[in-house]
Amino acid sequence: MTKIYNVNLDRIENDLFDLKKFGYCQKDKGIYRQGLTQTDMDARHWLMEQFKKQGLTTCMDGAANIIGRFGDSDGPAIVIGSHLDAAPCGGMFDGTLGVIAGLECVRVIIEQQIGVQHPIEIVATSEEEGRFGGMFGSQSLTGHLTADWIEKACSVEGESLKETMQKLGLNTKDALNERYSRDSIIAFLELHIEQGPVLENKEKSIGIVENISGVFKWLIKLIGKAGHAGTAPMDMRSDAFMGLADFAHELSRIIDEEGSDKSRLTIGQVDLKPGSAHTIPGEAHFTLVGRDVDEEIMRNLSAGCRKVLSAIARKHRLMFEFEEKSWLPPQPCSPEIVSILEETVRKMEFEYMLMPSGAGHDTQFFAKITPSSMIFVPSVNGISHAPDEWTHWTDVEKGANVLLNSLLKIDSL
Amino acid sequence: MTKIYNVNLDRIENDLFDLKKFGYCQKDKGIYRQGLTQTDMDARHWLMEQFKKQGLTTCMDGAANIIGRFGDSDGPAIVIGSHLDAAPCGGMFDGTLGVIAGLECVRVIIEQQIGVQHPIEIVATSEEEGRFGGMFGSQSLTGHLTADWIEKACSVEGESLKETMQKLGLNTKDALNERYSRDSIIAFLELHIEQGPVLENKEKSIGIVENISGVFKWLIKLIGKAGHAGTAPMDMRSDAFMGLADFAHELSRIIDEEGSDKSRLTIGQVDLKPGSAHTIPGEAHFTLVGRDVDEEIMRNLSAGCRKVLSAIARKHRLMFEFEEKSWLPPQPCSPEIVSILEETVRKMEFEYMLMPSGAGHDTQFFAKITPSSMIFVPSVNGISHAPDEWTHWTDVEKGANVLLNSLLKIDSL
Repeated sequence: MTKIYNVNLDRIENDLFDLKKFGYCQKDKGIYRQGLTQTDMDARHWLMEQFKKQGLTTCMDGAANIIGRFGDSDGPAIVIGSHLDAAPCGGMFDGTLGVIAGLECVRVIIEQQIGVQHPIEIVATSEEEGRFGGMFGSQSLTGHLTADWIEKACSVEGESLKETMQKLGLNTKDALNERYSRDSIIAFLELHIEQGPVLENKEKSIGIVENISGVFKWLIKLIGKAGHAGTAPMDMRSDAFMGLADFAHELSRIIDEEGSDKSRLTIGQVDLKPGSAHTIPGEAHFTLVGRDVDEEIMRNLSAGCRKVLSAIARKHRLMFEFEEKSWLPPQPCSPEIVSILEETVRKMEFEYMLMPSGAGHDTQFFAKITPSSMIFVPSVNGISHAPDEWTHWTDVEKGANVLLNSLLKIDSL
Repeated sequence: MTKIYNVNLDRIENDLFDLKKFGYCQKDKGIYRQGLTQTDMDARHWLMEQFKKQGLTTCMDGAANIIGRFGDSDGPAIVIGSHLDAAPCGGMFDGTLGVIAGLECVRVIIEQQIGVQHPIEIVATSEEEGRFGGMFGSQSLTGHLTADWIEKACSVEGESLKETMQKLGLNTKDALNERYSRDSIIAFLELHIEQGPVLENKEKSIGIVENISGVFKWLIKLIGKAGHAGTAPMDMRSDAFMGLADFAHELSRIIDEEGSDKSRLTIGQVDLKPGSAHTIPGEAHFTLVGRDVDEEIMRNLSAGCRKVLSAIARKHRLMFEFEEKSWLPPQPCSPEIVSILEETVRKMEFEYMLMPSGAGHDTQFFAKITPSSMIFVPSVNGISHAPDEWTHWTDVEKGANVLLNSLLKIDSL
């Protein structure tokens, strides 16, 4: 039986608290370290210093990804890591945990003089959270960016990616040079907080990610007739909001009939027009976000929603329009890597479960070019992207140990 | 059988088109003549000129109401009229029709030398539409204003009623001097467009208003837990919007069980927090406006809504708060006046129906001090408060004739 190694939790804690200082706001206790801001760049330079202290070859690539490479050979590397940027008013674990745990793995390898066959690279990807669309760093590393996209990318506030990068001394053209080809990478592992309530609810310390959900986003308009809320009898109305309410009411049935236990349908944004208390809503504009790990099921959910919308529109005398803003297919993880993670967790006797990732992650781009998977640790109350984001240190330790020992297992194959 | 008199439709048309010029916007074809603006005052001065041309005693009172009095006696008057201000981007019939038809009645009486027993007063009330809360003029005329309310009244844009009136040379104190006591008024009649779809739908030219609906307005908050729309499984959510949708879905059942065919429940305003497509709504803030002509039914609707909200909150793991922002009891019209209107309409052989007024009107304050009712004429497509507001001229003529002949009938009693 292979020897089990252990990370040093104190070092992980110290690093995470050091990183937290970059963008921490005393007032609301949130972290403001959005991708490609000066604060983000400062954190990246701090990380390069930590890599150098361990004697790693380190660099920032054209997309502001930080890479620390351990090992002398020129051969293909096992890559571990996550993102370093934070959601606005975010927490201290999202992304950073995967980067710092990666660094700790290499520290243990060096300290314990564990002989490894392959180079190991720790990546701290850039702009995962979506300031300019998200997963910018991992798309760059894996060759998924296009010149056209880069040219057009721009933040909600209207800053262009191009100018933002120029101001930081980066050249967008360099982001088109992918670091990894199928030949230069052996596998990719990402440790991340779950950002949901499942692990805590099921009392598991570790989640092993089998697939990353696909997602579609619709903008829907139901159009009826505005009118005085007093003068129009209930049966003479074309109330756009009542159409929306009826549609929302059917979502659970649509999932029961067309979906799986991994399906999600969410209405997150609603805008009524004219939106006044004494006026029947003439229009309801809203978003529908659907997710599943199976693209066929996504198509069925989508067809089910369209059918229900048509029926409801007819019933309430409404017109409906919808625009599919995005359709991202699910991304399966590597069954081989999932097996290795399971084997490690079983050996360490941690409570675990196989699960999908409902949120998108850098892994989904690595998984397109190399065997990849993710290790999830529980989020207290399922909270993330908020100052209250927390993961118990014992779970952080377990997650980092699963990362370390799975990495060594992959190296040994 | 009493003689039937007829109005001159051409004169009504001319006056309405003249009035339309005050505040008409070429661009969106709407009328911008909100209460207590200079445009509104200009229209009032124009009206006083029309009154003077007919030899009426005319004045503007302390609340900017215009009164034109016909008849020499000092005795109590029969009062007819409506409001002269318009909703923002409003139409050319709302309010103005009742004023101009009132003027036409007096013109016919003068022209045809119809002997009347009582003085007749035409009122053009001020600020009915709600710039400062609404029905300001009729509340002043009937003694329903308080010094405290006047002191605090202020527009949505934050202008105080007091300063606004001062700028127009009016003194708020004078608005506290009511013109009418129970002894100085015999009856009140208001001709108004329906502002709803019922008459058109039922193919009736005349609606006789039996009562004016009461109305309650709630601000409701459903509070759950925001979360990532991907990571939280459907059964672990506390989705505030799904609670709202379930509530909206129950409204028709609540009316079936607790209400009447005159009940209305409307959700007109919805605000989700955080209100982003990929986030489960943690809070839903919304308005509920309920109406009926029977206060007991209003109480039952209100209790029914509260019960359903509690049950839904429990089911979706939500907290709920609600604030009753207003409770205005229904106002019955005078059965005697309603009978006189019915008798007139039957004699004239117009298609008519008895109906409630779902919207509030100046009549509801007059009805508290004197026998009152309203005559409705159809709104094409039920539209009002918009440039498309329209009433066919044949219906305008019928409505004005009902007003004239009912007025004469009341005078003869």
